[in-house]
Amino acid sequence: MTAQSAPVVSPLLTDLYELNMVQAYLDNGENGEAVFEFFVRRLPARRGFLLAAGLEDVLDYLETLRFSAEEIDWLKATGRFRDNFLDYLRDFRFTGDVHAIPEGSVCFPYEPLVRITAPLQQAQIVESRLINILHFQTLIASKAARMVLAAPGKILSDFGLRTAHGAEAGLYSGRASYIAGFAGAANVLCGERYGIPVVGTMAHSFIQVHDDEMLAFETFARARPQDVILLIDTYDTEAGARKVVELAPRLKADGIAVRGVRIDSGDLIAMARKVRVILDQGGLKDTVILVSGGINEDVLQGMMKEAAPIDGFGIGVNLDASIDAPSLDCAYKLQEYKGQPKRKLSEGKQTWPGRKQVWRSYGADGRMSGDVLGLESDKADGEPLITQVMRGGKRLAPAPTLGQIRERAARDLARLPEPLRQLQPGTEYPVKVADSLVALAKEADARTKR
Amino acid sequence: MTAQSAPVVSPLLTDLYELNMVQAYLDNGENGEAVFEFFVRRLPARRGFLLAAGLEDVLDYLETLRFSAEEIDWLKATGRFRDNFLDYLRDFRFTGDVHAIPEGSVCFPYEPLVRITAPLQQAQIVESRLINILHFQTLIASKAARMVLAAPGKILSDFGLRTAHGAEAGLYSGRASYIAGFAGAANVLCGERYGIPVVGTMAHSFIQVHDDEMLAFETFARARPQDVILLIDTYDTEAGARKVVELAPRLKADGIAVRGVRIDSGDLIAMARKVRVILDQGGLKDTVILVSGGINEDVLQGMMKEAAPIDGFGIGVNLDASIDAPSLDCAYKLQEYKGQPKRKLSEGKQTWPGRKQVWRSYGADGRMSGDVLGLESDKADGEPLITQVMRGGKRLAPAPTLGQIRERAARDLARLPEPLRQLQPGTEYPVKVADSLVALAKEADARTKR
Repeated sequence: MTAQSAPVVSPLLTDLYELNMVQAYLDNGENGEAVFEFFVRRLPARRGFLLAAGLEDVLDYLETLRFSAEEIDWLKATGRFRDNFLDYLRDFRFTGDVHAIPEGSVCFPYEPLVRITAPLQQAQIVESRLINILHFQTLIASKAARMVLAAPGKILSDFGLRTAHGAEAGLYSGRASYIAGFAGAANVLCGERYGIPVVGTMAHSFIQVHDDEMLAFETFARARPQDVILLIDTYDTEAGARKVVELAPRLKADGIAVRGVRIDSGDLIAMARKVRVILDQGGLKDTVILVSGGINEDVLQGMMKEAAPIDGFGIGVNLDASIDAPSLDCAYKLQEYKGQPKRKLSEGKQTWPGRKQVWRSYGADGRMSGDVLGLESDKADGEPLITQVMRGGKRLAPAPTLGQIRERAARDLARLPEPLRQLQPGTEYPVKVADSLVALAKEADARTKR
Repeated sequence: MTAQSAPVVSPLLTDLYELNMVQAYLDNGENGEAVFEFFVRRLPARRGFLLAAGLEDVLDYLETLRFSAEEIDWLKATGRFRDNFLDYLRDFRFTGDVHAIPEGSVCFPYEPLVRITAPLQQAQIVESRLINILHFQTLIASKAARMVLAAPGKILSDFGLRTAHGAEAGLYSGRASYIAGFAGAANVLCGERYGIPVVGTMAHSFIQVHDDEMLAFETFARARPQDVILLIDTYDTEAGARKVVELAPRLKADGIAVRGVRIDSGDLIAMARKVRVILDQGGLKDTVILVSGGINEDVLQGMMKEAAPIDGFGIGVNLDASIDAPSLDCAYKLQEYKGQPKRKLSEGKQTWPGRKQVWRSYGADGRMSGDVLGLESDKADGEPLITQVMRGGKRLAPAPTLGQIRERAARDLARLPEPLRQLQPGTEYPVKVADSLVALAKEADARTKR
C-alpha cells in the first residue's frame, strides 16, 4: 500500500450545513462535550441482520482530517464565513473519543455502530463523511454476507467496479465484500490498497480481436501461463468448451494447465452442465467453471439447489450497487450534550438518547439468542459489543488486519440463528430495549423546552 | 477549483483483466487500431430516455492517465506481469481519438455515448474507469431529469452525500443533477470542484444543543444573517413556525430577513399548508418553505398535483443512489478492429458493429420525432449527434462550462415528445436501425471464425 495511490478525499466533501453550524457555534462559544451515535433505523426488506463495516476507514479519516491553505482560501472566497471559522479550520485536529462495534460484527437496527464523543464543533464537522463511509460499507458487507450464506463453499468475487457508483464505491465494495467472505475482487486497487486477492480473466474483445477463438485461447494461455481462465461464450459456449479440450494437451506439453473457463451469458446452469460434461469427457476434470452476469443471492441459492456444476461466481452490480436495497435508513444523532441526554422528537423519527452499549447473549448451541440495548452505565448479562477504539483523536491500538476483520465476520455469520441465515429471514432477531434507556428517554423529553 | 482537492483516483482503479489482456497483446505485438463504443442496452422500468453525462470527466481521465513509479513497482511485486508490460505502463499516454454525444443530450439505448478509436492496448486499458464514470453520471443525470420534469419551477437541491455510495458518488451526483437542472448541492466539494451553487441549512442537533428552540433560531440567524433558513420540525412543526413568526420582527429590526423554513419529517404536504398559513398570517409571505426527507419524482409530482405550498426540495438518497433503478445495463464493446467490423454473438447480448452516428429529426413543433442509428459513413436526414471531441489524446476544444452543458440539457428536455416527459412514458421513442448497420452486422457474423 502506498499512501499516494489511495483516493484522496478533500475535507470539503461535506454538507454545507455542517460548516454553517460550526460558524454559529464559534460565534457563540458553544463547544461543550457532545455525544453522537451512528445507527441504522431499520432493515431493508428481506434482510435479517447487518454486517458492520467501514470503521477503520472512519478512524483513518478522523486521524488525518486537515484543511489545506487552498481549501481555506476557497471557503473564504465564498464570502460565507468569518475569520474565526477560517482560523478554526486552519488548526483543525480531531481530538475526540470513538467507541464502536468492531467491523465484521453482526448487528441490528438501533444498535450504535459508532459513537463519537468530542467537542461539539468537531463532532459536527465530521458528520457527513462519517455517514458516507459507514453507510456504504455496511450496506455492501450486509449484502455480500447474504451471498456468502447462500453459496457455502463457493468462490465469490467482486466484479462490480464498472457499474459501482464512482471510484470509491468500486474500492469500498471490494473491501466490504472481502470482509463478508468473498474470495477476492477484480479491482486492482483493492489489492494495492487493502491487500485483497485480485482476480480476473479476459474480455470478449480479446476473443474478437483474434478472429479465431482457438488462437485467442492459446495466445492468452501462453501470455499468462500461471493463471489460465478462458472465456468461452463469445460465439458458442459448447463449441468454446470443445476448443478448450482440444487445446489443453498442446498447452500441457508446455507445462500449462487450463485452470478454468468462464461463462458470461445464456442459461448459466444448463450451460455449465453441458460444459462440465465436455470438460470431463475431455480429461479436464480439474478445470473449474466460473460464471458471471446477473448473479445475486437468489440466483446463487437457486444454483446451489440445482447442484449446478459451478465452482465460482463473478458478481457485479448486484453487489456493488446492492440493487435490491441500494441504501440503509441510517442516522448520526446527538445523544447527549454537556451531560444532558438528548433526542429528536420529529414525527416517526424518534431516537434513543444517551451513551449506549449492546449486550449479546448466546444459546447452548453457540448461536446468538438476543441483544439488550441499554446504557453504557448499565450492568447487563451477555457480551458487550461496543468498545473504545480511539482516545483524544488517536487509535488505542493498531488497526486490525483485514484478515482479522474477515475472521470476525465468519465467526459472527456462523453464530447467526438459523432463520436469520435464510434469504427470507423467518424471524426477527430479539433486541430488547433496557428499562434504563426508556427512563432516560422520558427524562430527555421532560427536559426539552419546545 | 484547486487540482489538489479533486479526488485523485489511482490508475490501479481498473479490472485486472484489462491488464492481463494488455500483457498478452504486448507479448504478441497485437496493437492495431481498435474502435470501442460505450452504450446503454436498455432503459430501466418506467424510464423513457437517458440524459448523457460524464464525458468531460472521461476526457480529463484520458488526458491525465499516468502510472507512477510506485504503482508500477507494486504491479511488478505481484509477480503477474513481465518487464515489457511494466515498461509499457511507464510511458503510457492515451493518444487516441474520441467521438461522443455531448453531455446534457437526451439519448436512447444502443446510441453510443462515447466512441474510443485508439491502439488496441490503450483502448482496452481505459475500459473499466471509462464505464465507471459514464455509467454513474448518466444514471444520475437521467434520474434527476425525471425530478426536474416532475416539478417545473421548483428549487431542487442535491442533499444526498451521506448516503451516496462513497465520496465520488456524492461529488458526481451533484454534478450530474446540476446538469439536469437542479439548482444546487449541499456537498461543498461540488462548489469547489465544479462551481455548483452550494446550499445548506442546519441539522436537528443544532436545535437540540440550544435546549430552547427559539434561542437556536435566533443564534443561527445572527450567525448567518445573509441566508437564514430555519429547521422547524425538531419538536413540533407548527410551534416551530409560530416561533419563527415571533422572532422575525426582532431580526428585522437588525436588518435580518428569514428567507425560509425547512420541514424534514411528518406529512409534508399537510404540514406545509399549516406552516404557510402561520407564516402568511404572521406577515412572512416572502419566507419560502423547503422540505426534505423521502422526496422522489413521484412524491414531487404528487405535491405538484396537490398544489402544496412548497418552494423547494432537498433530495437525498433517491437521487444519489437512484433508488428505483440503481444501475443501467451498459457496455463498452469492440466494434471494429484493424478495419474489420466486430460484434459479440453471446446469447441475448448481440451488439451492432462499426463506427456509428445518430441522426435526430424534429417535428414542426420543435419536438424530437425520431432517431436513426446508422454508420458514420451513411448519409441520413436529421441532426448528427456524435462529434469528435478528442484527437491524438488531446481535446479539440476547451471543455464546455457546466452552465453550457446544463443549457443543452434544458433545451433537450424541452424538446422531448410530451409522452416521454411523463414519469410513466406513454410511448417508446422511435430509434430506427439503418439498413447499412444491419448489413454490416451480417458481414461481421459471416466473417467470424467461431
